[in-house]
Amino acid sequence: MERVPVLKIGDILLVSIQIDMEDQTALQLQEDLAERIVVTGCHGVIIDISALDIVDSFVGRTLATIASVSRVLDAETVVVGMRPAVAITLVELGLSLPGIRTALNVELGIEMLARSREDEYADDDEDEADPATVTTP
Amino acid sequence: MERVPVLKIGDILLVSIQIDMEDQTALQLQEDLAERIVVTGCHGVIIDISALDIVDSFVGRTLATIASVSRVLDAETVVVGMRPAVAITLVELGLSLPGIRTALNVELGIEMLARSREDEYADDDEDEADPATVTTP
Repeated sequence: MERVPVLKIGDILLVSIQIDMEDQTALQLQEDLAERIVVTGCHGVIIDISALDIVDSFVGRTLATIASVSRVLDAETVVVGMRPAVAITLVELGLSLPGIRTALNVELGIEMLARSREDEYADDDEDEADPATVTTP
Repeated sequence: MERVPVLKIGDILLVSIQIDMEDQTALQLQEDLAERIVVTGCHGVIIDISALDIVDSFVGRTLATIASVSRVLDAETVVVGMRPAVAITLVELGLSLPGIRTALNVELGIEMLARSREDEYADDDEDEADPATVTTP
């Protein structure tokens, strides 16, 4: 059975899906990711699907499950690198990947995760002064 | 033909090899990487081989060629994530991957690239004071 590697980069886990997702591979990836989130304490998961020609309902469901499991473990998931043709086919099939955040590429995904993490902290410390609003006279 | 995606993260290009490298795939990867180095101006390439069970002489040669091509384009290559069993087999086969730098995982690879980049800048500005060599009496 092939296994999709999970790479840790700073506070983010990166998964690049390149092989066809079969039942076992998908389950293994879900388990691996959940375990790595717990072990590393990472708060972000980026799934790159730029190598995929086809995203069918099974892959869509797998991505949704990964996003939900990650969320329960306090990590946010962003799917990146979707090809234009894949996006068109998905919508034609009536699959709009609900509950999954997307970004154009890994870098924008990392930015998106960093921003939403910042927002979270800002909500936590609302009484503290926000450096962005402190203006010098 | 399958294609290995090249992901850009900051100043680094990341490649996660998960599929069997055949002639065409290897050539395509070399081309893609060279092109991305030129287009993005990245100075580091990280190749993750944690998904590979076997690294034979062909894969070894491919990695060496990628490293050489990258070097010519002013980018440094680090191979990361080699499994212990792969390392043992490589040495038993007499393949010690000459000219290829390795690191245990992606994070350490990124650190290695950042450090050698710093060293390079330090060499460039040798007349400037180097904080590492300034010793207090």
